[in-house]
Amino acid sequence: MSVTLAELAERFGCELHGDGATRVDNVGTLANAGGRAVSFLANPRYLADLGRTKAAAVVLEARHRDDCPVSALVAPNPYATYARIARFLHPLPAFEPGVHPTAVVAADADVAATAHVGAHAVIGAGARIADAVSVGAGAVVGSRVAIGAASILHPRVTVMGDSVIGERCVLHPGVVVGSDGFGFAREDQAWIGVPQLGRAVIGDDVDIGANTTIDRGTIDDTVIGPGVKLDNLIQIGHNVRVGAHTAMAALCGIAGSTRIGKRCMFGGAVVVVGHLTICDDVLVTFHSTVLKSITEPGTYSGALAADKASRWRRNAARFGRLAEAAPLSADTREAPVAATDSAKGTDIDD
Amino acid sequence: MSVTLAELAERFGCELHGDGATRVDNVGTLANAGGRAVSFLANPRYLADLGRTKAAAVVLEARHRDDCPVSALVAPNPYATYARIARFLHPLPAFEPGVHPTAVVAADADVAATAHVGAHAVIGAGARIADAVSVGAGAVVGSRVAIGAASILHPRVTVMGDSVIGERCVLHPGVVVGSDGFGFAREDQAWIGVPQLGRAVIGDDVDIGANTTIDRGTIDDTVIGPGVKLDNLIQIGHNVRVGAHTAMAALCGIAGSTRIGKRCMFGGAVVVVGHLTICDDVLVTFHSTVLKSITEPGTYSGALAADKASRWRRNAARFGRLAEAAPLSADTREAPVAATDSAKGTDIDD
Amino acid sequence: MSVTLAELAERFGCELHGDGATRVDNVGTLANAGGRAVSFLANPRYLADLGRTKAAAVVLEARHRDDCPVSALVAPNPYATYARIARFLHPLPAFEPGVHPTAVVAADADVAATAHVGAHAVIGAGARIADAVSVGAGAVVGSRVAIGAASILHPRVTVMGDSVIGERCVLHPGVVVGSDGFGFAREDQAWIGVPQLGRAVIGDDVDIGANTTIDRGTIDDTVIGPGVKLDNLIQIGHNVRVGAHTAMAALCGIAGSTRIGKRCMFGGAVVVVGHLTICDDVLVTFHSTVLKSITEPGTYSGALAADKASRWRRNAARFGRLAEAAPLSADTREAPVAATDSAKGTDIDD
Repeated sequence: MSVTLAELAERFGCELHGDGATRVDNVGTLANAGGRAVSFLANPRYLADLGRTKAAAVVLEARHRDDCPVSALVAPNPYATYARIARFLHPLPAFEPGVHPTAVVAADADVAATAHVGAHAVIGAGARIADAVSVGAGAVVGSRVAIGAASILHPRVTVMGDSVIGERCVLHPGVVVGSDGFGFAREDQAWIGVPQLGRAVIGDDVDIGANTTIDRGTIDDTVIGPGVKLDNLIQIGHNVRVGAHTAMAALCGIAGSTRIGKRCMFGGAVVVVGHLTICDDVLVTFHSTVLKSITEPGTYSGALAADKASRWRRNAARFGRLAEAAPLSADTREAPVAATDSAKGTDIDD
Repeated sequence: MSVTLAELAERFGCELHGDGATRVDNVGTLANAGGRAVSFLANPRYLADLGRTKAAAVVLEARHRDDCPVSALVAPNPYATYARIARFLHPLPAFEPGVHPTAVVAADADVAATAHVGAHAVIGAGARIADAVSVGAGAVVGSRVAIGAASILHPRVTVMGDSVIGERCVLHPGVVVGSDGFGFAREDQAWIGVPQLGRAVIGDDVDIGANTTIDRGTIDDTVIGPGVKLDNLIQIGHNVRVGAHTAMAALCGIAGSTRIGKRCMFGGAVVVVGHLTICDDVLVTFHSTVLKSITEPGTYSGALAADKASRWRRNAARFGRLAEAAPLSADTREAPVAATDSAKGTDIDD
Repeated sequence: MSVTLAELAERFGCELHGDGATRVDNVGTLANAGGRAVSFLANPRYLADLGRTKAAAVVLEARHRDDCPVSALVAPNPYATYARIARFLHPLPAFEPGVHPTAVVAADADVAATAHVGAHAVIGAGARIADAVSVGAGAVVGSRVAIGAASILHPRVTVMGDSVIGERCVLHPGVVVGSDGFGFAREDQAWIGVPQLGRAVIGDDVDIGANTTIDRGTIDDTVIGPGVKLDNLIQIGHNVRVGAHTAMAALCGIAGSTRIGKRCMFGGAVVVVGHLTICDDVLVTFHSTVLKSITEPGTYSGALAADKASRWRRNAARFGRLAEAAPLSADTREAPVAATDSAKGTDIDD
């Protein structure tokens, strides 16, 4: 699609500095954009690239306008504006409505005429697939699952029985929603499976990254709020609730029955133990371990930076003798550790 | 299914306090159970909910009987007893025996008449599928694999060639068993693949969570003992042995050739480096790193709790200067670090 | 295959000590090898097993020859030589060329006559499958994807549209290549998806472990260099570049736009935050968190060893008061933490 800068400025509410007749048809990074591309500056880290850019135009904040050697599309939130322009110039491919002849659809499943069901997909009994949904190749939708309008299930997604997926969700390849939670009761040496009877309920506008897993609830439901964004390889345990617009980067793990607030942001590989409550607007940096409930919004950290191994070893050895070297008073002797309930053997995931 | 409390008490060996004629037909949490539901108290954390419950009956220990405002089913291990009652009231759906017409089954595979093979499943040459096994939609069972009686392979499970799965196992969606271990020999700059020729052998009554991966052995087998319970997104490296009834929560990683004892419990995201031996009855709390063999049963921890970022930064900075501030004596200077063998370039996963 | 030691010595350039007429036909560990097996000694940890071995012959370095009670195949790099011998004795099964009748191949896809496409595989429009490629059962290859000669896609691999896979690659089951990166722009409370328009480009001779995910680039490409070896359950974020012959063990996560050098080795569960540069020849030990760019080759560590919980608690409590106990001078007060850009809300994965 080719469009003039003037049209872009009007459509996306930008203040244009430059030649409105210039035509663009793609997007690019500041460093690599060509003469028909729109770029953006959202992170000051890339300010040096701005001065050298060969883009047709750059979306940026007013304060950077004078540093821009090409046309500028000034917007208060350049990254969001860029996202909309990029989607406009590079629209998602349309799905062909209809069910592929190799798909297996249960007789009583309700698949909208505008929905797409890809090759080798399987739709279970009583499932409801709403308008404009795309079920990718090899995806499996269990019995009685409901998929809301305009949601996209990429290839090889599995949604287990009774799960509910909202509207406009995107489930990337390999996602598993509604698998059994990890609940076992210990008896003598062995474990007895605790039936996992709740559902996994996913709100509208949720993104779930490749190979991420979201377990169904034990009795009540596991609930992912609207607008939540989950990256790849994340584990959401049974009975967890994640508040609206919370975002988690890859490899996070949220243990069973924990409640996460709204608008939280977790860096990659954050681990939160079970049965905690994290309030709204909490940012947790990469690779932290959350062992206690958090009741105040703010930024929390818990990962030590890797260091040269020789220095690390010496510091780590010193850490291992901290208490010995300087005993604390009685009231501070105990730091929290996780899994104390597990120690009692009631539920390994608690 | 509807049943009286008297029947439940007799069938599951509970002491009933209340009206034996009361009928129940489902289960619920203490907080949300309705008047025809059985609930349970296993974790004292929920004692406050007991006083307010509207359940028909609660499974609990004798010491909590007087706190129960409704009928009580007294049992020494309420969680295990609840698990059995829940399964009784909510039985697993029966599988239809037979091979779906879209499944691809090798001519010489041996599939029991009572087994179910779902849509688009693939069964390789020489595979043996025992009685009452369910192979879910889109699952792939490799050549010469043996699946023991009454095991369930959920949709999109992959079991690679020569693997052995015991009886009554449950493999959740996306599981991969018997993929190649991570073995490469370094030569000059590059890596040469070391053939992975062992098998993955899974005992009876093993649960494997969604998207968990278990590699085959290099020469000898990778062995998962009977009754082991693995949560989602766990990695079990080649040649690992996990003892009976050990349970691991999500995102744990066990590196190659490590041996884990019986009845161990690992919280989520525990990492154990390669070539270690962990004895029986070891509990490791969430997100710990195990760098040395463990020879004594007990509880082990290794994760620092996330803290407010401002305070964390100051403490972390101080950690980085511990050795400088107070040098240790020679005998304690070195803390163990992982991957020292890898440093020698013999096998990245060792 | 049965072969004499003399033939092996000649074919693989070893110095033979022993009877060249002895025939072997399999491989084994020092402890378990039988009388027709070749074994190896690469790790001195197993020296004690050498003295007791019943193998027909052992591949080892000259310095261990006198400790060997059976025939010796002396080689400067025994593990690499063993790997070649093992592959020779246990060749990979050949794939049958041709497209399985249940596979769904787009009319304009270009599949070489020597390629194998398995049951229920799906090949998208415009895809190119080169000579001797194997696409496993249930694998999905998106539109316009190119797969280089002799690459193996194991069952249930997903390669999303526009990705490029080199020659002689091995993608293990459940791998996802080319899924959308985790890019969202924050606007008010909600997130707006940033179109992910770059490709995932995988070099020659790359191994990608089971259920590992590699995202496509945002604008430019995500690039995995030749000879890279990735274990299971690894996350590679958008725009990441990994240099030639780098190897990562399971559960590593590399956040967006980070560049990793050549010949690096990461132990399992290493986390690297976004927008960093790691130079060539860096070894990072298990479970470390890399929060800053690394400019010097060498070994880096960042994980504390798990300890008995009682001792750990006391040391961890002391850590939480380090700064309070001994304030640092102003210039060292701040340790780096991750996700500071995320705090600014520009891109959760940055």
